[in-house]
Amino acid sequence: MPELKVNFDVLSPVKFLIRSAEVYPDKVAVVYGDERYTYRQFYERVNRLASALISRGIGKGDKVAFVCPNTPPMLEAHYAVPMIGAALVSVNIRLSFPEVNYILDHSDAKAVFVDNEFGHLVSTEPGDLPKVETLVNICDLSDEKPLNGPSYSDFLATGSPEPVTIDVDDEYQVATINYTSGTTGRPKGVMYHHRGAYLNAIGEMLECNFTHDSVYLWTLPMFHCNGWCFTWGVTAMAGTHVCLRQVAAGEIFRLIETEGVSHLCAAPTVLITMANYPGARDYQMPRRMEIMTAGAPPSPTIIQTIEAMGANITHTYGLTEVYGPHSVCAWKAEWNDLPLEEKAKLKARQGVPYIIAHYMDVVDPKTMTPVPRDGATIGEIVMRGNNVMLGYYKDPEATATAFAGGWFHSGDLAVMHPDNYAQIMDRKKDIIISGGENISTVEVENVIYRHPDVLEVAVIPIPDPKWGEVPKAFVVPRDGTNPTAEDIIEFCKQNLARFKAPKAVEFGELPKTATGKIQKFKLRDREWAGRDRRVN
Amino acid sequence: MPELKVNFDVLSPVKFLIRSAEVYPDKVAVVYGDERYTYRQFYERVNRLASALISRGIGKGDKVAFVCPNTPPMLEAHYAVPMIGAALVSVNIRLSFPEVNYILDHSDAKAVFVDNEFGHLVSTEPGDLPKVETLVNICDLSDEKPLNGPSYSDFLATGSPEPVTIDVDDEYQVATINYTSGTTGRPKGVMYHHRGAYLNAIGEMLECNFTHDSVYLWTLPMFHCNGWCFTWGVTAMAGTHVCLRQVAAGEIFRLIETEGVSHLCAAPTVLITMANYPGARDYQMPRRMEIMTAGAPPSPTIIQTIEAMGANITHTYGLTEVYGPHSVCAWKAEWNDLPLEEKAKLKARQGVPYIIAHYMDVVDPKTMTPVPRDGATIGEIVMRGNNVMLGYYKDPEATATAFAGGWFHSGDLAVMHPDNYAQIMDRKKDIIISGGENISTVEVENVIYRHPDVLEVAVIPIPDPKWGEVPKAFVVPRDGTNPTAEDIIEFCKQNLARFKAPKAVEFGELPKTATGKIQKFKLRDREWAGRDRRVN
Repeated sequence: MPELKVNFDVLSPVKFLIRSAEVYPDKVAVVYGDERYTYRQFYERVNRLASALISRGIGKGDKVAFVCPNTPPMLEAHYAVPMIGAALVSVNIRLSFPEVNYILDHSDAKAVFVDNEFGHLVSTEPGDLPKVETLVNICDLSDEKPLNGPSYSDFLATGSPEPVTIDVDDEYQVATINYTSGTTGRPKGVMYHHRGAYLNAIGEMLECNFTHDSVYLWTLPMFHCNGWCFTWGVTAMAGTHVCLRQVAAGEIFRLIETEGVSHLCAAPTVLITMANYPGARDYQMPRRMEIMTAGAPPSPTIIQTIEAMGANITHTYGLTEVYGPHSVCAWKAEWNDLPLEEKAKLKARQGVPYIIAHYMDVVDPKTMTPVPRDGATIGEIVMRGNNVMLGYYKDPEATATAFAGGWFHSGDLAVMHPDNYAQIMDRKKDIIISGGENISTVEVENVIYRHPDVLEVAVIPIPDPKWGEVPKAFVVPRDGTNPTAEDIIEFCKQNLARFKAPKAVEFGELPKTATGKIQKFKLRDREWAGRDRRVN
Repeated sequence: MPELKVNFDVLSPVKFLIRSAEVYPDKVAVVYGDERYTYRQFYERVNRLASALISRGIGKGDKVAFVCPNTPPMLEAHYAVPMIGAALVSVNIRLSFPEVNYILDHSDAKAVFVDNEFGHLVSTEPGDLPKVETLVNICDLSDEKPLNGPSYSDFLATGSPEPVTIDVDDEYQVATINYTSGTTGRPKGVMYHHRGAYLNAIGEMLECNFTHDSVYLWTLPMFHCNGWCFTWGVTAMAGTHVCLRQVAAGEIFRLIETEGVSHLCAAPTVLITMANYPGARDYQMPRRMEIMTAGAPPSPTIIQTIEAMGANITHTYGLTEVYGPHSVCAWKAEWNDLPLEEKAKLKARQGVPYIIAHYMDVVDPKTMTPVPRDGATIGEIVMRGNNVMLGYYKDPEATATAFAGGWFHSGDLAVMHPDNYAQIMDRKKDIIISGGENISTVEVENVIYRHPDVLEVAVIPIPDPKWGEVPKAFVVPRDGTNPTAEDIIEFCKQNLARFKAPKAVEFGELPKTATGKIQKFKLRDREWAGRDRRVN
């Protein structure tokens, strides 16, 4: 146990639960279907899980993996595991069998908890996961136990509800490891420290106006940057967590009504699903809603549709390496009366660092010199501060590359506007170089998104004998519409520099990652098959 | 300059200003009468002050004293001084000449800034303040320059608006020194560190639902625990500071109307002043107001009157040594429908630790064992955590006493209720021991406060040949009423154990400290003149 100091206390997000259990023991902390856990019960279940883990020989420095959707056990793991000094590995349930098992093995997990719907993702081949000693089946939808171990509730029953002492004596101790879903290459294990998780959790609460009576809906996966640290932040404020096993618009609207949801985080694709739900256009939310979105800028249509229901959409930006959002498109009162298109354009920017994040810049990655704040010169977004990861687990080389020059390199190319708001133009590897001119695929996509017949779009470079590269658009049309390639190209020419308009348009579904990001690399690979493309 | 680290950044509250100036350069940061400073201007003035101080040879480890009411220079000092690694000494302007000069000398201030209305508080005798090298006159109400130095605006003009590098490389570096106004003995210099100030500033914002568009009125003196760290917290949220030179109800109501004030902090005496302002009872605030009060529990009448205007009163508790409030009487939804008296009783409790404070307990100060959570056993409130002072400046002995047993000793006697809410029964030296029974003077006062004819009351022990000590009440009657001693005593007997009712009642004004606290010791000294009283 750390020395008792009067004026120093290790910043750790697990302490939020202890305080909320003391202050609000009878308040509902966790809702899942008909299940209701008060803060007292939540804390007791966490202590049971923690003490049961200890009794299996798990403690400081060990890793515990969860393969589980947004159900109560997943939330409990966010306290029980870091509390005993171990690191939680929340595995993305949308990954493939080889990816999941690579992560379980690479993370050195000594225990693996799996929701039985996802039991098939964990290898039961003898010798495949030699470091795993404890297997637990989370039996939620059924009683099936795919792995050779007890059920989660039986496992909890072996623990004690009495408070477990927090075994964290260093703020930079590893609390969790989150594997990037990386569009290419092996997933990398991003190590989160207690200090960063504590500060980021509080930072989220400050940014999204979360209060003691707020109710948070778990549309964002907890395996995503530990749910952007809302796993801890909501508890700090003694708000209510409403768990959600699967993102479905009907269920989201039902919970908004029945549980009085006030906050949710979601990628724009989830907002698109909500906006297209039958009746959504006439729907009025019973309580004003705060929605944080990230992953891609929300389109004007989405902003208009969702905000008309009684929500406020805040656009944030970040990466796994900075605990989720690091910047926010902080809204200004003087923008309220602008036309919707103007507002959407401003809101699409990645913005400014969070209060607790403080450091973000757009620089020439070679010299680390900030680009001019002209809204035109493209550089790389770099970040630093207490909410930057410790590094990649067992990968000092990748860590050193990411931290070159004393900043974390995002790999995102952006401009800095004169008002100090950053705006992403492209991923480094996505940007199109056409006849020596840079074309931001994001810029082209933003224009195409404004076309009334377009639901989703991705723009990539394709080879061109004259220009080297030219843009091509892959478009998902809105239901009941039938746009032509000429329509799209003409629309771009009217709203963009002509050389930025796509030379080709294709209609159909878009390939996406497990977390819902469009996989441009798959489209690119297809178009560039057999040819080399420059590497940035 | 500290080494550039990717994932470590010294927590310092001065950084909030840099962020807000970057994000909201054109937003109004500071209002004072007709003066308006945007965040850009606020930051420029701070840089001017910081660089002018540096040019006078002031830097890391030095002390800079301000004798100044709640005007913009006082706010600017909260950034400029800690920014250059020096410590700000905000001197209570209500103290006497000897006290002020004791503090200026004891703090080793190298520079003294004085608002010229309070020039008479600073000695101009040659040799009196040998360590002071720089004197600056803040000419607000007039151009008079009582001290041998430039005006504040001339001083600023010698500095540069360009960003000054923050010279803080250790979170536990001293940011400010706040002298306690101590009812007895010499004032002690409470040293605040940057880490505690940062976390406490954020903690305040979380507790009082402060958002980006909140407007804070400076009713609470900034020389009081640096305004409970709202000096920094309001800036962190990019809210607006409305300065207030002098607390006067008419001006408070005017600013609520004209500036759209949403938040203020005040001792209950200020709330009493507001409640008794002509027309207050029919007044409706144009915007919902959040009021944080501390120093004494707000009486039911005050709660009723102020909340009827459209405000929410939150009762907090703390001391200079913990950066102002450390605990909050966190309100619960299930209390909303209780009768007013019940609500006031619950709200009068000192409550539970802040989210960021986390540790508070009521213990037997000798054994440090927590008292039973029975709402009856009296012990001492102790605290620890990141928001506890470094110690008393140049007084290691007093520091060691205050930190005995690894906790900060508040000197407040309290009970712990079964719901983990602490309630103060008395200061250690105030509690009455009558026939072997403890009588909490606060408990008796709370009952007397409910009498319709009572505006203010203080209860103290007086000597009694039979019981050793018995309670005596000093009452300020409400305007236009004329209660008798018998009225008060009878009222107490009906609402308290009979032995707790005062044996004597006296009507008239109450002696108060410079910060508005009732000076019970003065009443006690008078009643006990020539006799000894036990010392705890």
